[in-house]
Amino acid sequence: MVASLNRYCQRIPSVDDQVGQEAARYVDTLTKPKGSLGRLEAIAVELAKITGHMKPQVSPPGIIVFAADHGIAAEGVSAYPQEVTAQMVHNFLNGGAAINVFARQIGAMLEVVDIGVAQPLAAPGLISRKVRYGTANFLKETAMSLKDAVAAIEVGIERAEAMIDRGIKSLIVGEMGIGNTTTSSAMLAAFLCGDTSGAYPGPDTTELAERMKGLVGPGTGVKQERVIHKQSVIARALALHRPNGQDPVDVLSKVGGLEIAGMAGAILAAARHHIPVIVDGFICTVAALTAVRLCPHVNDVLLAAHRSQEPGHQVALRLLNKEPLVDLGMRLGEGSGAAVAFPLVEAACRMIGEMATFQSAGVTDGEGA
Amino acid sequence: MVASLNRYCQRIPSVDDQVGQEAARYVDTLTKPKGSLGRLEAIAVELAKITGHMKPQVSPPGIIVFAADHGIAAEGVSAYPQEVTAQMVHNFLNGGAAINVFARQIGAMLEVVDIGVAQPLAAPGLISRKVRYGTANFLKETAMSLKDAVAAIEVGIERAEAMIDRGIKSLIVGEMGIGNTTTSSAMLAAFLCGDTSGAYPGPDTTELAERMKGLVGPGTGVKQERVIHKQSVIARALALHRPNGQDPVDVLSKVGGLEIAGMAGAILAAARHHIPVIVDGFICTVAALTAVRLCPHVNDVLLAAHRSQEPGHQVALRLLNKEPLVDLGMRLGEGSGAAVAFPLVEAACRMIGEMATFQSAGVTDGEGA
Repeated sequence: MVASLNRYCQRIPSVDDQVGQEAARYVDTLTKPKGSLGRLEAIAVELAKITGHMKPQVSPPGIIVFAADHGIAAEGVSAYPQEVTAQMVHNFLNGGAAINVFARQIGAMLEVVDIGVAQPLAAPGLISRKVRYGTANFLKETAMSLKDAVAAIEVGIERAEAMIDRGIKSLIVGEMGIGNTTTSSAMLAAFLCGDTSGAYPGPDTTELAERMKGLVGPGTGVKQERVIHKQSVIARALALHRPNGQDPVDVLSKVGGLEIAGMAGAILAAARHHIPVIVDGFICTVAALTAVRLCPHVNDVLLAAHRSQEPGHQVALRLLNKEPLVDLGMRLGEGSGAAVAFPLVEAACRMIGEMATFQSAGVTDGEGA
Repeated sequence: MVASLNRYCQRIPSVDDQVGQEAARYVDTLTKPKGSLGRLEAIAVELAKITGHMKPQVSPPGIIVFAADHGIAAEGVSAYPQEVTAQMVHNFLNGGAAINVFARQIGAMLEVVDIGVAQPLAAPGLISRKVRYGTANFLKETAMSLKDAVAAIEVGIERAEAMIDRGIKSLIVGEMGIGNTTTSSAMLAAFLCGDTSGAYPGPDTTELAERMKGLVGPGTGVKQERVIHKQSVIARALALHRPNGQDPVDVLSKVGGLEIAGMAGAILAAARHHIPVIVDGFICTVAALTAVRLCPHVNDVLLAAHRSQEPGHQVALRLLNKEPLVDLGMRLGEGSGAAVAFPLVEAACRMIGEMATFQSAGVTDGEGA
């Protein structure tokens, strides 16, 4: 199964730098002082490179929310009980969650995928692709098999390709999974310090727990004692499993999550089909990092939407060398930050697509540099 | 005429803190960890206070672009020749400028007002309210009479009230006027250091020009030598006219602009009618400061949209104690930054208006603080 995933990754194209250069020159002919639309100009050029079109489009966007449970929740790492994952799936299907509200605002196609909720779920509109009933508690055993990790990535590929077939022009992936900031911090730590299994210290995990500072935060809102507990849980899990940070499927199987694998797969599919991805907060950025470790030039199709309050997000953004569009103190997940930032990306497209040039409008150009 | 303006200002209501408190409590019952939507939650509460509604609405927004010329442009302070003001008015009317593109994106009513372009203008769709053919060169004489300054403010009031009658739920004001960053820097300097005419130094303007640093920037994109020239021009004009910073009509008449007066009037009208104002960049923020000097609690209806690249903008924002929503390196004007940031304000409204509560959705609330 890993072989077929590798073949998929090999078919992911590079972005088109030449179209990007043409777009940059064209932006300078539009009726505004050169550079005066700041980041919007840079985004327009990025989108031209990703899509291969001088006048790129990102609407309609597609949003896929992957829901799954985390065995690690049994260690008391979240402010919410595990049943909230399933309850929130119903809230998504009923249209009452934050992501529903923002999806309606931006005219997005929205789909909710059960990729591993820990209880049986069936409801109108739910896409059932349960790989397993939640992950195992990775403090005690590996979160899932290698086979399950690949299967979850392939669910993500399948769902994104289905939405691309339906006509979406950009992709947002979101998640719901009580405990998933702990999982994401563990994965990020594995990518950072787990380049070889020898990089992990011995049975004394004090030093490793110390290194978790800056990677582990309050998630949905636990207090400081519980953040320290999360750090300790992750350090012990890493010492036990020693995931290989160069092998994202190994990391997923040892300390990962099913929804994170699904998001990573969806991101691979977007890159495969020249579709820009607007990356949400911490968990989504760890999924993006997973996809980029599978195929490095996937990074070129990613736009970071917002700066999350969760401290590990800054670290993950630095690894991807991304600067977010907005910093609104958000930390909700579900893809909500990406959906809120989406109109800025849309504005960049409309600028390059619809503005008049100095020549077409009969406006005298200035000396502005 | 100043008396009737003062009467108008006295009728501007305060915002409703009680509705704000109710809205804040309600936001905490929505299906998300408390505080996890960051600034969007604070904006929703602000909008509830301004509009007096627990579930405020900002759509449809209205955009009024005021265009006028500046006699000070004769001093070579801009990268563009003065005729660009009129050329850009035609571009607005033809739908090709940045503000048109972003107005279409957010479903805004858009109106262009000739409040003082230096040449005769008539075109389908243009609102002609020319108070005079541009201001005078304020390095030589006052920019306009007190009567003209008040008349321009009243044009702004009239146009905003007309749009409010047509049903807009929020207001964006924009401007076009070659030379107007110089005017705005002069006004800002007058508000800052012109509290009494004695605060201005004597005929040697070297020290005053020094104090202009941080208030004067490249505008549409002049080079550093020209920025220094702008500083010197403004310092000499302030030493000549000694505008009273406590008297915004005096500041407008001595070193102001017709479009800035119009924007200030439109902001007063919005505050009078419980309509939130999304404030664009430097010039718009100086207009907002003018309105706030006329009626201090107007400040409570203002949301700062974006942080402009123009250095004086930071100073003006600090005077109003506002933190912008986005920082995208923009410096175009026209209201474009406010239009680009508008969807974030809309998102805040939709959050409080449409999200389910923990109780209505049957979701277990957590311990999150």
